[in-house]
Amino acid sequence: MTKWVYSFGDGKSEGEAGMKTLLGGKGANLAEMSNLGLPVPPGFSITTEVCTHYYANGETYPAELKAQVAEAVKKIGAAAGGTLGDPAKPLLVSVRSGARVSMPGMMDTVLNLGLNAATTEGLAKITGDARFAYDSYRRFIQMYSDVVLGVEHAHFEEILDMRKEEKGVELDTELDAEDLKAIAAQFKAQVQNELGKPFPESVEEQLWGAIGAVFGSWRSPRANTYRRLNNIPEEWGTAVTVQAMVFGNMGETSATGVAFTRDPATGEKLLYGEFLINAQGEDVVAGIRTPQPITKIVRERQGGRKPSMQEAMPRAYEELLAIGERLEKHYRDMQDVEFTVQDGKLFMLQTRSGKRTAEAALKAAVDMVGEGLIDKKIAVTRVDASALDQLLHPTLDPHAPKTEIAAGLGASPGAATGEVVFTADEAEKLAAEHRAVILVRTETSPEDIHGMHAAKGILTARGGMTSHAAVVARGMGRPCVSGAGSLKIDIAKGEMITNGVTVKRGEVITIDGAAGKVYKGEVIMRRPELTGDFGTLMGWADETRKLKIRTNADTPADAAVARKFGAEGIGLCRTEHMFFEADRIIAVRQMILADNEAGRKAALDKLLPMQRGDFEGIFKEMEGLPVTIRLLDPPLHEFLPHEEEEIAAVAKVSGTSADVLRARTLALHESNPMLGHRGCRLGITYPEIYEMQARAILEAAANVEAAGGKPVLLEIMIPLVGFKSELDLLAARIHGVAEDIKKAKGKVPAYLIGTMIELPRAALRAADIAQTAEFFSFGTNDLTQTTLGVSRDDAGTFLGEYLSKGLIPRDPFVSIDTEGVGELIRIAAQRGRSSRANLKLGICGEHGGDPASIQFCHDSGLDYVSCSPFRVPIARLAAAQAVLRSDTKKS
Amino acid sequence: MTKWVYSFGDGKSEGEAGMKTLLGGKGANLAEMSNLGLPVPPGFSITTEVCTHYYANGETYPAELKAQVAEAVKKIGAAAGGTLGDPAKPLLVSVRSGARVSMPGMMDTVLNLGLNAATTEGLAKITGDARFAYDSYRRFIQMYSDVVLGVEHAHFEEILDMRKEEKGVELDTELDAEDLKAIAAQFKAQVQNELGKPFPESVEEQLWGAIGAVFGSWRSPRANTYRRLNNIPEEWGTAVTVQAMVFGNMGETSATGVAFTRDPATGEKLLYGEFLINAQGEDVVAGIRTPQPITKIVRERQGGRKPSMQEAMPRAYEELLAIGERLEKHYRDMQDVEFTVQDGKLFMLQTRSGKRTAEAALKAAVDMVGEGLIDKKIAVTRVDASALDQLLHPTLDPHAPKTEIAAGLGASPGAATGEVVFTADEAEKLAAEHRAVILVRTETSPEDIHGMHAAKGILTARGGMTSHAAVVARGMGRPCVSGAGSLKIDIAKGEMITNGVTVKRGEVITIDGAAGKVYKGEVIMRRPELTGDFGTLMGWADETRKLKIRTNADTPADAAVARKFGAEGIGLCRTEHMFFEADRIIAVRQMILADNEAGRKAALDKLLPMQRGDFEGIFKEMEGLPVTIRLLDPPLHEFLPHEEEEIAAVAKVSGTSADVLRARTLALHESNPMLGHRGCRLGITYPEIYEMQARAILEAAANVEAAGGKPVLLEIMIPLVGFKSELDLLAARIHGVAEDIKKAKGKVPAYLIGTMIELPRAALRAADIAQTAEFFSFGTNDLTQTTLGVSRDDAGTFLGEYLSKGLIPRDPFVSIDTEGVGELIRIAAQRGRSSRANLKLGICGEHGGDPASIQFCHDSGLDYVSCSPFRVPIARLAAAQAVLRSDTKKS
Repeated sequence: MTKWVYSFGDGKSEGEAGMKTLLGGKGANLAEMSNLGLPVPPGFSITTEVCTHYYANGETYPAELKAQVAEAVKKIGAAAGGTLGDPAKPLLVSVRSGARVSMPGMMDTVLNLGLNAATTEGLAKITGDARFAYDSYRRFIQMYSDVVLGVEHAHFEEILDMRKEEKGVELDTELDAEDLKAIAAQFKAQVQNELGKPFPESVEEQLWGAIGAVFGSWRSPRANTYRRLNNIPEEWGTAVTVQAMVFGNMGETSATGVAFTRDPATGEKLLYGEFLINAQGEDVVAGIRTPQPITKIVRERQGGRKPSMQEAMPRAYEELLAIGERLEKHYRDMQDVEFTVQDGKLFMLQTRSGKRTAEAALKAAVDMVGEGLIDKKIAVTRVDASALDQLLHPTLDPHAPKTEIAAGLGASPGAATGEVVFTADEAEKLAAEHRAVILVRTETSPEDIHGMHAAKGILTARGGMTSHAAVVARGMGRPCVSGAGSLKIDIAKGEMITNGVTVKRGEVITIDGAAGKVYKGEVIMRRPELTGDFGTLMGWADETRKLKIRTNADTPADAAVARKFGAEGIGLCRTEHMFFEADRIIAVRQMILADNEAGRKAALDKLLPMQRGDFEGIFKEMEGLPVTIRLLDPPLHEFLPHEEEEIAAVAKVSGTSADVLRARTLALHESNPMLGHRGCRLGITYPEIYEMQARAILEAAANVEAAGGKPVLLEIMIPLVGFKSELDLLAARIHGVAEDIKKAKGKVPAYLIGTMIELPRAALRAADIAQTAEFFSFGTNDLTQTTLGVSRDDAGTFLGEYLSKGLIPRDPFVSIDTEGVGELIRIAAQRGRSSRANLKLGICGEHGGDPASIQFCHDSGLDYVSCSPFRVPIARLAAAQAVLRSDTKKS
Repeated sequence: MTKWVYSFGDGKSEGEAGMKTLLGGKGANLAEMSNLGLPVPPGFSITTEVCTHYYANGETYPAELKAQVAEAVKKIGAAAGGTLGDPAKPLLVSVRSGARVSMPGMMDTVLNLGLNAATTEGLAKITGDARFAYDSYRRFIQMYSDVVLGVEHAHFEEILDMRKEEKGVELDTELDAEDLKAIAAQFKAQVQNELGKPFPESVEEQLWGAIGAVFGSWRSPRANTYRRLNNIPEEWGTAVTVQAMVFGNMGETSATGVAFTRDPATGEKLLYGEFLINAQGEDVVAGIRTPQPITKIVRERQGGRKPSMQEAMPRAYEELLAIGERLEKHYRDMQDVEFTVQDGKLFMLQTRSGKRTAEAALKAAVDMVGEGLIDKKIAVTRVDASALDQLLHPTLDPHAPKTEIAAGLGASPGAATGEVVFTADEAEKLAAEHRAVILVRTETSPEDIHGMHAAKGILTARGGMTSHAAVVARGMGRPCVSGAGSLKIDIAKGEMITNGVTVKRGEVITIDGAAGKVYKGEVIMRRPELTGDFGTLMGWADETRKLKIRTNADTPADAAVARKFGAEGIGLCRTEHMFFEADRIIAVRQMILADNEAGRKAALDKLLPMQRGDFEGIFKEMEGLPVTIRLLDPPLHEFLPHEEEEIAAVAKVSGTSADVLRARTLALHESNPMLGHRGCRLGITYPEIYEMQARAILEAAANVEAAGGKPVLLEIMIPLVGFKSELDLLAARIHGVAEDIKKAKGKVPAYLIGTMIELPRAALRAADIAQTAEFFSFGTNDLTQTTLGVSRDDAGTFLGEYLSKGLIPRDPFVSIDTEGVGELIRIAAQRGRSSRANLKLGICGEHGGDPASIQFCHDSGLDYVSCSPFRVPIARLAAAQAVLRSDTKKS
């Protein structure tokens, strides 16, 4: 006979913590605590298999269930001393859902089940406390009607309020037993009125009603949606846990509360939580009475007047403290517990691993290693890598008052406050006066880089998580909110309108680049400090990980930041950003406007020393670590001005007419620039550009070495290769430049030539391409765009709907699409190494800083990931966690 | 000892026709003719292996070569009666190159080698014709100096001209022996003068000089380029053929000529060619004297006065005729021969398969089957499928005078003459007055469709072979020249300027859509008639091919044309073209401008009956053949007006303001529309659009069946799927519509749901997708764009350079990139069929009409190809040839 019901209580249980699949998280942990001999009210769990059976069989229960439940209820009664429905010795129970993982949309809790007219009267007699009995009864009717019968909550509140008004009182506690009895009657009348049938008097009916409500809620629309979005299989099902009630509302020696075994915000080792005297669980949450802290020190810090639990109930507090320590040792993790004190006696109602901030996770993990609770490897898994962002960037004080005026995507974490400006030039000008500015643009382009650098934060009306603004902001470590669709910017008027609010140039706003929110005025901020614990944990992560972590850095300043965060090289140095600096853009434009090779060469000759200087700075900063430099990638029209005023100005500086400039811009216009004349295609049609760049790189490396610097580990990278023939041609030209330098100077620095793999064709033809390429760097942004046929700049119009409909599990520009893009990466890695065993493999797309993608890179056997400087610590931790997760899978 | 030299002549040879690899095409065929007992002057071929040895060994010959050549020269002398360099009995030879395939850039021919002062004198004595001897000598010096010594040809012409001037004569033939002797001396002086060393008197030196020149020319820059572009391996090398001279210039009983065994323009069975009495080979080509026709009937047709060979040299003619027949029987193909008549005796100097027009190829192939020369299968291989275009479209008379004013891409074959118009509306207006117009646009967009339909031809300044103009023109069978870069169109002024020529609206131009040329005024045209032979050959092709041939057709008219050409179904019916018709575009725009679903539904309700009508027409036309209908694909902004004037007009009609319209257009603007909000993404975000289309399709099929039509084989196709979840959602909605119709009408037509495979991800996830999709249609245009990361609209700026540099062998938008895109197709086919064994597979991109791509589709096991109506015959033939080629490979 299948066992559908598992009892616990009285220091022994039929289940244990390992049986979450069958008993749900809550039930399994109650069983475990009971096995540990902790004071747990007796109860039982109905298994998740019943849920599965229920849906597989037209919403009916297994035949044996009724008897098994009856038996288990009897056991509770025996242990707790009472019988369900017996007015002389009434047993009351709570009924809760319990899935394998906690899940919104599920029925939560029904308390005080077992009360009806007769048993309430009995409870009043036994306890000698009629007020307590009727208060419990009206609570039960209210809760049961709401969550089981689906009667609207508001009606009950009205009845309660009317009664208080009639009596001229304000608090529930000021109502007496008679009041509560009357209210209970009115509640029942309301139910009869609304449903056309009476509130159940039968305790059997009550129990099965509650059990049915739990199973029914497994397929509620909200639960369905949550499951789909979080990939939770429908087959898992939920368990139901029924447990004898204990009462925190039996007077001043009773209480109820929740506690963390460490401060979930800071990780400090003390009992952190709240409790309420003479109350039941829902009062703590309801916020009608203000709960009191658990420990004295917390009360003192908060300047609270009401005593802490430590002061008010020292015995129960000491017991709770001991149990907390016991649970931490047992579970080897910080616990989040629920408890009730009934007439001075402590009961544990739940324990689970406690949610915590990144700061707390870090401190707790490092402390626990010190305490001998866990080892370093477990410590490494205890901090959510993505959450490290919280430690690296300023964040808004969660308690600060704020007025939200717009929302978009959290495109680059951190918070910033500043005056609104609408152009890059203005941003630069005000920043030079040491004023904090937020650059607000419809969307940014490479021409805005100097303004983005000058600004404290960036806000755009359009663009997704990998739009220009987002990518550049993350690279610079600037907070950014992108795609705030409500923004209408009127540069001419110098204002923006959002959701009816007008913000003029110079007015102050605050952006939260993690949450994607925009607020009016200044909002108080918290500036995190990196503690020693951070370095300790990073050290442990470094001991564990196999992937190298490089950074995407285009300037010596970026490189310095990244090295501080532990970068082991540069995986992507984009040379085009250098082209936009004020002193270069003129020469760049002269090159583009030149009619012939000679004209282009003259302009490039001006750029050569500037680029060489850029590279020298970067090489010095990196002190012999590998540096991958990508030759020019974006289409040339990105470097030309597009607005009339600017065209006129540029024409004047370039010594050409506005008409010529407009004509050239028009000639360079492309329908789909992402798939246009860019990358190595530029290198092939304008040989002199890549030749200049190769020369600048090699001469810079030679100069740094000649000045006594460490030899540069130089990797020259050709973008957008699709055919081996492209790479062959360009590699031959670079070798030609190297030969020239060797002839002139007697020697030339060593270098590798490799390619981005960012086109499906390149991935498929990797065996060919690796005959020439000495390394591959997966450009996963473009590879995602081409493999999925989705432009990241335009995806905003439908990707949101795809996510909300559950058509795709995650934004593929945030987390690698492992099934599609991922297969191409695996193919390329395998084929590439088949023709060159020591081929170096890395990724340099935006995915390089995403933990799930880093896991994929580890599993696929890549050598390194490269990400923006501020994500380097995330990558280090995620790479270590990937090793541990893979080890777990293997074992 | 390696045999480096193979002799032929005297009715027996050491080589034969099968030894082209070793002896080159020319040498192998001379050996074969000699084996057949035909009159071939004796000679020998130096093998291609010598060429390989030459380059592998620092440009030196194998040690044994000298002796083998000397031996072979002796054999020639023995057979021809003479000795190289012997003044008493001089042997003269010709030296020619001979690669496996004929190749530009190679040294062609040196005639009369063996002449020097002494042997010329001897030749004069023996022949008793001093003029002949010195004419031969001066020709030899001239030719040898040019092709072997590299002395400029022009100098010799000057000397010759001066002499004629001095003598007051006009023709070479008016110079006598003394003149020619003096000229020969002047030629030699010129060589001495230019090279600083004398013209070789040694006949040995002459022979090895010529042999060396042949081998040297194998690596000439022109030969290298040609090889790279045509994928001819460098290792093949060239052979050298040395042959005893026979003389067509020994007086009136001598002659030289070339002939085809059938008319290469029409295929008519007669000797077609030209000859010159008393002349050497180069005179026929040089064009100084007008050659005479071979056959009497041709002379009569041309109205020539000079006698044909049949009349002038009846015996030699009869012999040539017999030899021609003999060669055709032997080679089972039409031959192109060179011959010389020396003093009444016929000698054969070359035979090879003759190049011919499509018309000739068709007639010759069908005739030869009738004559029992070849079987049907060989006949099918004898017509170049691509060349069928010549038979289906009007072409320009090659002899008509014409003034070229612009050149672009031959985007859609055929020629057309008409008045220039610059807007689609004007085209439509003039066409309604039965005036022929050529629509000239910078580039076309879907809004121009009605004008393209009304025009006789289309000319654009921008866009490649798969630009909108090109694709639509081919679909309609309209000639089109695209990407004529020199065009500057000024609509306001009503004129275009190209290469300095101004053409005003209403002026007449002619375009050649095969050659990509634009001419001023009218040019005489040839309108081909489809002969019975065409149908015969198509029938044979149909017996052989395995691939089904469908067509891309959007209207009943297209469908009718395609069926006439033999289409077996519609592989792609694009529903969006229907949206542009004048009566629909208003409703379409109302839909796009609607703020909400209700507004969109109201507009779609207007479109429903129109679309239903479209489909009914197509279904009727196709009479039960399969019809694949693609649901809406292009991004919505394509349907909105972009120019101010039009915006105002549309705003008025739509009852909205221009501002609203502009705002909506701006909101819909995309950076990369190819990768944007289109295809199934539209279907997902605007469910009502696809639901309307599904309803229109199903109701139309029901109506046609109800009216007694054959049941429609209906295939509903969802574009741009990347994820199974997309297809699942949309398939469920279509099934929902079908259910509704079934409920309302009691039944619903049968239909399949399938998807385009046009994204790399879709190809990779084919196993998933085929769980839902009942067919796949490869959209190879978009699959090429995404796999290669190349926008077809923008590729013009670099693809030309890629082709000219040999980086890619062919335009990937014309012929499938089998290594990249092809691998994805093979992956998708294999994975798709792994989850659905009977999955129907086809292609519907532009490649469906390209023979090389059709070969690929056959090899990959697809079920059908779909192409524009006018390419259906090409596809039928190419599909048959693919079978035969694959059979050959297997055997």
